Amino acid sequence: MSKGDETRQRILAEAAAIFNQRGYEGCSIQAIMEATSLEKGGIYRHFESKEELAAEAFDYAWNIAATKRRQNLDAIPNEADRVKQHIANFGHRTGLPGGCPLLNTGVDSDNGNPVLRDRVRKALRDWQAMLRTVLEEGMKAGTIRADVDACAAANRIIAGLEGAMLISRIERNDAALRQGLMQLEAYVDLELRQSRA
Amino acid sequence: MSKGDETRQRILAEAAAIFNQRGYEGCSIQAIMEATSLEKGGIYRHFESKEELAAEAFDYAWNIAATKRRQNLDAIPNEADRVKQHIANFGHRTGLPGGCPLLNTGVDSDNGNPVLRDRVRKALRDWQAMLRTVLEEGMKAGTIRADVDACAAANRIIAGLEGAMLISRIERNDAALRQGLMQLEAYVDLELRQSRA
Repeated sequence: MSKGDETRQRILAEAAAIFNQRGYEGCSIQAIMEATSLEKGGIYRHFESKEELAAEAFDYAWNIAATKRRQNLDAIPNEADRVKQHIANFGHRTGLPGGCPLLNTGVDSDNGNPVLRDRVRKALRDWQAMLRTVLEEGMKAGTIRADVDACAAANRIIAGLEGAMLISRIERNDAALRQGLMQLEAYVDLELRQSRA
Repeated sequence: MSKGDETRQRILAEAAAIFNQRGYEGCSIQAIMEATSLEKGGIYRHFESKEELAAEAFDYAWNIAATKRRQNLDAIPNEADRVKQHIANFGHRTGLPGGCPLLNTGVDSDNGNPVLRDRVRKALRDWQAMLRTVLEEGMKAGTIRADVDACAAANRIIAGLEGAMLISRIERNDAALRQGLMQLEAYVDLELRQSRA
């Protein structure tokens, strides 16, 4: 990695943490200058505008979260078990301060930030597609019930996870998240998994 | 209502709409001055600080949303039907720009705004208590299954609603919300309602 690339990555890492905690309006370039010990020019050498930096920082943050949440999935042959592992992965911290980037930026980018909004929409679409793919593979392999609506099931899981994370964040403890994970794991076993005849 | 009270209510109505759309950091006192045609002193005569104004504006916004979402519930004698009507009410707009105040402010107030955070926590607690009460009344009346965990069921409904609203907001259409409402209504019928023997 060139020195310029290294600096760019360092800016992204710091900006991702600050944007994810404080939102677009609450994150000043001054704060990123302080976190990176760079001058304003040193930051804008790598990013055209605050809007572009925020969009790239969101992608950086989402990549960390999505990678963590997809951990240990490939080794699981049964698709119902793979969806359950994906859900269970939400019980572990991503290491990213501020919580789920989709929740933060999805709410924050709602008004007047179309570049950021497109990135969030793409992140959601990727997540939905990943879940749909696992469910459809399972329907072919006979591990997921053939009458499952993969699109509706993916949204049910995503909504349940994001909603439980919201409650836990407001309550400042993990109880509601853990409860939500258990409910979703039971949903996989009772409504998605093809039981052996 | 005195003229002073009227002005206070007018400030709250404008501030609630702006805070709910732009968040705490994104809402300037300047924007509230413009919306109300008041000078800064005219606003701070009624509110000690921006923090206090934001907290009161959240309560104002939440009251509008909660009232709308509790519409037509009292006339329904069966508790399972009452929970279903509450869920169905989320298919109608609150009339408040910016969407659900709990989602917006729950995410936005996460860092560095303890006054606002307390109000959001109280709003969530009230909502959980309202759902728990209906479910417990139904358990006594024999309309809700006796083995339902009212606390877990309340969180499941709240998480499902807030998560579906997040997806719909990111996708900019109501499809995921409508899908989520159908799933939750089915949940009430299949897992909460006491079926007649």
